[in-house]
Amino acid sequence: MYKEQDFDVIVIGAGHAGCEAALASARLGLETCIFTINIDTIAQLSCNPAIGGLAKGHLVREIDALGGEMAKVTDRSGIQFRMLNLSKGPAVWSLRAQADRVLYRNNMRQSLERQKNLSIKQAMVENIVVSDNSVKGVITSLGVFYGARAVIVTTGTFLKGLMHIGLDSFQAGRAGEFPSIGLSDSLKSLGLKMGRLKTGTPPRLDAKSIDFSKTTVQYGDDPPLPFSYSTQKITNPQLPCYITYTNKKTHEIILKSLHRSPLYSGKIKGIGPRYCPSIEDKVIRFAEKERHQVFLEPEGIETTEYYANGISTSLPYDVQIEIVRSIEGLENAEIMRPAYAIEYDFVYPIQLRHTLEVKNIDGLYLAGQINGTSGYEEAAAQGLVAGINASLKLKGKEPLILGRDEAYIGVLIDDLVTKGTTEPYRMFTSRAEYRLLLRHDNADFRLMDKGYGIGLVSEAVYERFREKKRLMDREIERLKKVRVKPSHEINNALLSLGTSAISEDTSLDKILKRPEIRYDFIKKFSSPPEPLTSEIEGIVEINVKYEGYIQKQMEMAEKLKKLEYKKIPADFNYKGIAGLSHEIIEKLSEVRPETIGQASRIPGITPTAISIILISVERYWKEKGF
Amino acid sequence: MYKEQDFDVIVIGAGHAGCEAALASARLGLETCIFTINIDTIAQLSCNPAIGGLAKGHLVREIDALGGEMAKVTDRSGIQFRMLNLSKGPAVWSLRAQADRVLYRNNMRQSLERQKNLSIKQAMVENIVVSDNSVKGVITSLGVFYGARAVIVTTGTFLKGLMHIGLDSFQAGRAGEFPSIGLSDSLKSLGLKMGRLKTGTPPRLDAKSIDFSKTTVQYGDDPPLPFSYSTQKITNPQLPCYITYTNKKTHEIILKSLHRSPLYSGKIKGIGPRYCPSIEDKVIRFAEKERHQVFLEPEGIETTEYYANGISTSLPYDVQIEIVRSIEGLENAEIMRPAYAIEYDFVYPIQLRHTLEVKNIDGLYLAGQINGTSGYEEAAAQGLVAGINASLKLKGKEPLILGRDEAYIGVLIDDLVTKGTTEPYRMFTSRAEYRLLLRHDNADFRLMDKGYGIGLVSEAVYERFREKKRLMDREIERLKKVRVKPSHEINNALLSLGTSAISEDTSLDKILKRPEIRYDFIKKFSSPPEPLTSEIEGIVEINVKYEGYIQKQMEMAEKLKKLEYKKIPADFNYKGIAGLSHEIIEKLSEVRPETIGQASRIPGITPTAISIILISVERYWKEKGF
Repeated sequence: MYKEQDFDVIVIGAGHAGCEAALASARLGLETCIFTINIDTIAQLSCNPAIGGLAKGHLVREIDALGGEMAKVTDRSGIQFRMLNLSKGPAVWSLRAQADRVLYRNNMRQSLERQKNLSIKQAMVENIVVSDNSVKGVITSLGVFYGARAVIVTTGTFLKGLMHIGLDSFQAGRAGEFPSIGLSDSLKSLGLKMGRLKTGTPPRLDAKSIDFSKTTVQYGDDPPLPFSYSTQKITNPQLPCYITYTNKKTHEIILKSLHRSPLYSGKIKGIGPRYCPSIEDKVIRFAEKERHQVFLEPEGIETTEYYANGISTSLPYDVQIEIVRSIEGLENAEIMRPAYAIEYDFVYPIQLRHTLEVKNIDGLYLAGQINGTSGYEEAAAQGLVAGINASLKLKGKEPLILGRDEAYIGVLIDDLVTKGTTEPYRMFTSRAEYRLLLRHDNADFRLMDKGYGIGLVSEAVYERFREKKRLMDREIERLKKVRVKPSHEINNALLSLGTSAISEDTSLDKILKRPEIRYDFIKKFSSPPEPLTSEIEGIVEINVKYEGYIQKQMEMAEKLKKLEYKKIPADFNYKGIAGLSHEIIEKLSEVRPETIGQASRIPGITPTAISIILISVERYWKEKGF
Repeated sequence: MYKEQDFDVIVIGAGHAGCEAALASARLGLETCIFTINIDTIAQLSCNPAIGGLAKGHLVREIDALGGEMAKVTDRSGIQFRMLNLSKGPAVWSLRAQADRVLYRNNMRQSLERQKNLSIKQAMVENIVVSDNSVKGVITSLGVFYGARAVIVTTGTFLKGLMHIGLDSFQAGRAGEFPSIGLSDSLKSLGLKMGRLKTGTPPRLDAKSIDFSKTTVQYGDDPPLPFSYSTQKITNPQLPCYITYTNKKTHEIILKSLHRSPLYSGKIKGIGPRYCPSIEDKVIRFAEKERHQVFLEPEGIETTEYYANGISTSLPYDVQIEIVRSIEGLENAEIMRPAYAIEYDFVYPIQLRHTLEVKNIDGLYLAGQINGTSGYEEAAAQGLVAGINASLKLKGKEPLILGRDEAYIGVLIDDLVTKGTTEPYRMFTSRAEYRLLLRHDNADFRLMDKGYGIGLVSEAVYERFREKKRLMDREIERLKKVRVKPSHEINNALLSLGTSAISEDTSLDKILKRPEIRYDFIKKFSSPPEPLTSEIEGIVEINVKYEGYIQKQMEMAEKLKKLEYKKIPADFNYKGIAGLSHEIIEKLSEVRPETIGQASRIPGITPTAISIILISVERYWKEKGF
């Protein structure tokens, strides 16, 4: 075997997880190499051409606050930006962007290529070399060995990828790309337990053949709000999306063709994403619904290709055509690329630590879809955390473990490594206990200190954040201090908004706390010494308005944290503890939770069991002299 | 089997041949569909990121004059333009452009996507359906049938593609792309005789790891001259290339590693391109040479990837690294993608007519690398001719067959269908008998009437050409008419340029014919009524200067043309002709030349045999009453 060279960190795969992992590690000064089967498809948006959306938008902002790349590349590639959920509470506001697929690929590739300490190699890694439970490097299909002190595996849907279109199936990593066969066996031989998942995409249509006049147009926000804290302005031309619907005829076509579906004929064994179902799943599971939305997303500025979001399917090609042409506006639509389903191997993520390191293999990290997640944002978040933790470990520093009260990324990883998953895991705001703390607008307040401390956030960006924080604090302070006297003018204004008049001197913050009152109102009666940006005004408003709730969630989080972070020794023996059922002992021995908090979230672990373990653990530490 | 829809013309493959074929056919009003294995790699520059060069530049200009797309896309994607061979005669001047690989792909894809009558489908065609010796359509790997009245096969290196890196080999169409297996068998089952060829690429290097200060920089022309007659200005930023060399150490590394070469160990059976040899071929065949040039070409404006032109190799990866790092400036170079060789099936092109239609299958056309050629330009030229001829046939019009005195495209196709090829065929100026007629500068004069007549050249472009022709004719006329008197001034000027003085009134054209005199000189003494563009000045100069030679070549071509176009009947029976050897009868029966001219160029056919056939053929036509 030929040995080319040693790296500190090797990343396998250059999708959304791989790119973040490699950039983080290289930026933290480690010699890094990223391997991809095809350099031309780095950061491919293989599913829909959009980044963000509900809860996912939060992840993107968090990635940015920690110094990751996804938000920046999205801003440079975005062709529509929309803040979703504005009619609901600020905790669930979420930004989504449509991205130009080609620009996204090129912009991320540029970021990688221009990164110091980062090599990019087109090669298929077939083996991970481990000895003495410690990773040593990788071997490519050409039999070349590359040494590494840490290896991060981010292979997406490529592990034994099997594409299905109707009852036809063929080995592929994504449409038109080679699968990775050997690497899956290599991971298995390292003792990792693996399962099989399934995902799919809808057909891509040619705009020339769509009658957009029969659809509903949806424009983005104007001006578009960027994802990244470091972006000043979105400069790409902005494009609309279009909405149409399936109908009774569509559903009939699907139902009569089910016997030709690999999903319903039992050919596909992998489990699909519950929250991003195929159109045949939707028609069956929601039989009462008369129509399902089809969201036509442009694939880019220059191309005529459109992504028909909502009709992902593994039905045969001829049925796909029938389905498409049964939909209003798509009567004459031409399919440019067919829909397909893909099955792939994944690793049960309870075998990982919170750092995303494999529990019994020193220096081996897994991130992204290989851990059973779905979605670009979930992948990128894990990639970033794996890249940071591999680097911190090699530098002898404390790992980055984000709490469930700190970040959706914390929720994501804690869910994965604690509860595990047997179906593609997608982020939702409902997965977070402390939604009011984990807002879209405050990702920098939550995480930028960490990103800066680690060394991924630049001095300039951090300085801008500190200035923003200073202005916010000052304004909140002012709102608490300044009191307005009851006057005709203010009381008339209050009454006209449907809220009560004031009868004594009242502080501005008290008025702002009223549900009917927005910051704009306050500003009219008492403006700050210097005008604030609309971003800061928004944050001030949310912080004042929800102060009580936020405070309560913080206290609850604090209380739980004490338990949360109570460490369980790595060699802790559950078998010796009286009062635990056989099933609970088995589960705990399998997951090996690192803290009491983590133990409490393992499905099936009862509060009684937790208190028994807590006593045992405390006794253990006392005996050790802690 | 499911039948989706019928087209007039189906093109299989979206490389350089396929794109031209599809655009031509759609622009001529025929419902056309182009099938590609991957829409993302339409018009991939799979070898070096450059278009044009010696003789190939002529092809590109001819494609443009006929209304093809390659020149226009090159102009929109070019990052360096250089006129080569300026120190030699104008017949061999050739334009070459470096192209941004990503831009080229996107620009060509845009041209396809925006083209009326053209559908683009991502699918692998596995079968060509023929009945009664007439093409009926194609079947994809999903078992979908598409009807067509003409099918153009442009599959490049994908037919049973087999990649080699050292002694490792794997099935692939190009690096990172699926091969096409079934289609090759389908062609074979139609009775086509097929052979195997081989080509290869060098490694791609990371600019960050190259020491450019040790190389020689080569800039393009300023201002850059565009390829297309319709381009006003090149707007991309322009980049230089860099030159370095192999050395004794490089050659030693290669020689000691030959046993690990699939080429020299006999593993590769296909025949490689004689004029674009691998570095191991060069080191062996030119053992006396102490160094070979390595031309470092940027892959694009944004990327750090460089193409190391000159060290194409199929040696193993570790040897590739040794080779690269033995070269000055590349001591620390990182390989981003390894070099590889690829073997693929091709069809012996003597089975085709001059229209590129398969002789015994009505409506089946082959174009590009499948016909045994190498090079983007050779492929595009054939694609255009096949697309035009398929369309003309369906419209019941006369085919486009270009003479050897009209175009390099004529030479290319006549060579292929008459002489055939058993190794990758590349265009050279030396292949043309009438080089002075087939110049780079006069492609529009030679072909634009045809392109316009067919309907591929727009009114505006054709009008500009007519105006240019008018101005040129007028100026040439003027130069013949205007006579200068011998004067001190002009004679001093003539003498100072090393040519003799004039002693009587002399026409301007006579003076310009002198080798020492350029048009600029003439202009100084007698300028035209309105100033001419430098392009027209150049054409005037060449036409006047080489008038005699051009005239002579035209007469020779005319004389031969009479024979050239003497048609041989399709059912002509050579066996009945006395005086022809068994071998000659066999060759003629195999090639079935369509004209006496074509028969005369078949290798091994003697002049005596030609006169015997001529008599027979004339008798045949007389008997038929012609």
